[in-house]
Amino acid sequence: MNLTIVKVGGKVVEEDNSLSALLDDFASLTGAKALVHGGGRSATKLSEQLGIQAQMIEGRRVTDAQTLRIVTMVYAGLVNKNIVAQLQARGVNALGLTGADMGIIRSDRRAPKMMSDGQLVDFGFVGDVREVHTDTISSLIKQEVVPVLSPITHDGKGNLLNTNADTIASEFARAMAGIANVKLVFCFEKPGVLLNPDDDNTLIPDLDFDTFKDYQAKGIVAAGMIPKLDNGFEALRKGVHSVVITNVQGLKSGRGTTLKL
Amino acid sequence: MNLTIVKVGGKVVEEDNSLSALLDDFASLTGAKALVHGGGRSATKLSEQLGIQAQMIEGRRVTDAQTLRIVTMVYAGLVNKNIVAQLQARGVNALGLTGADMGIIRSDRRAPKMMSDGQLVDFGFVGDVREVHTDTISSLIKQEVVPVLSPITHDGKGNLLNTNADTIASEFARAMAGIANVKLVFCFEKPGVLLNPDDDNTLIPDLDFDTFKDYQAKGIVAAGMIPKLDNGFEALRKGVHSVVITNVQGLKSGRGTTLKL
Repeated sequence: MNLTIVKVGGKVVEEDNSLSALLDDFASLTGAKALVHGGGRSATKLSEQLGIQAQMIEGRRVTDAQTLRIVTMVYAGLVNKNIVAQLQARGVNALGLTGADMGIIRSDRRAPKMMSDGQLVDFGFVGDVREVHTDTISSLIKQEVVPVLSPITHDGKGNLLNTNADTIASEFARAMAGIANVKLVFCFEKPGVLLNPDDDNTLIPDLDFDTFKDYQAKGIVAAGMIPKLDNGFEALRKGVHSVVITNVQGLKSGRGTTLKL
Repeated sequence: MNLTIVKVGGKVVEEDNSLSALLDDFASLTGAKALVHGGGRSATKLSEQLGIQAQMIEGRRVTDAQTLRIVTMVYAGLVNKNIVAQLQARGVNALGLTGADMGIIRSDRRAPKMMSDGQLVDFGFVGDVREVHTDTISSLIKQEVVPVLSPITHDGKGNLLNTNADTIASEFARAMAGIANVKLVFCFEKPGVLLNPDDDNTLIPDLDFDTFKDYQAKGIVAAGMIPKLDNGFEALRKGVHSVVITNVQGLKSGRGTTLKL
């Protein structure tokens, strides 16, 4: 079985026009597929409307109890179910999920972290993926059900946890690689990895790990791309068949950066 | 296959203590089961926090676009996924769903209604159930997956719709009656149908349709119970094996009102 797993960033799924274009292209992909989405901008907006100040430490959001409620509502409810309804309207038998549903993704709550200033910071209800259970979901995928995963997992003790969507995509891809030929596609704003982030014509069509490390050492690859690339190479190493970094247009055209070991 | 479908009202699932007691009892039920929940109080609370005035006409909520966003977040996100995580912690392989997921429940948006004062009222994004698709969900139930249904459905054209949870429970029960021996349990605040709503000792253990109609004519049955009873008798007529009206305690003790045709 071939399985395409598409990760789309928050911005794409949170604007009606770009979401609609994405879902048209996603619906037209042949073969088994799954979608993993974010939703951070809507969560931030709802927090602001409720007068809750987002607490960021070194660029990372602290998920306190109130924030967990908000991301659960936005990711697993609003964003996820609207995607599901719109895929159903396109003839795609979508099933919206969190990691808690059918126990698919179990996480450990992240331990407090020592920051560079020596301060110990508890990031709250944030989950690091421990295990992915694919039995039931893979049999559903074989029946043409299309999973739509929101970035919420659970700890198996009754708690939901806020979890990075890129990580969910690559962990899910790695787990499915045991039973399927998996293609993992990260969709974001740029057409792929660029030599010059301001010039789309500097797209790198193929990127191997040594070249990536060389570019990283020389400061050529944008800082924000590094976790995505580390995730992508790790997925390749763990048996994912191919990893592509692209934008929504690239989902259809095939243009983008393909990672090589 | 025996299948128990439990409908629980908003109040029970929206308070930590009563939810926990409910989930303990629900988890201990033997055989195949499913849960249908509400969540109206949390939705009203979130609306208030966002400064959105709930618009009620003759006791019924108008679901405008903003309200639809809120009920989608609260029912399908917050309430549903917390129940799922807590059932997983109790060893129940829960799967949270809306009617859009796997296209299980399709609804028609309710047409504007002529009110008693001659005014034509559009209740907004409210769905009346048209069809229930049980193929995939019944095969999941056979694999010991436990559906947790939130009262959101879809119209098949990409729109989510706010749908009455009692109706979802009885329509799902009727659809499943074709392939399972279905017991439908409505859990609410009272131990069952009471001759005197203020005295729990006046519980009617068995209620047949003629007696119900007689009580209704005499004004003995509380007005709020009538839609629930009409729904329940209709489910019995359509092949549901048994219908019981009770409270959370009755889920375990078996005490409650059993409907008879």
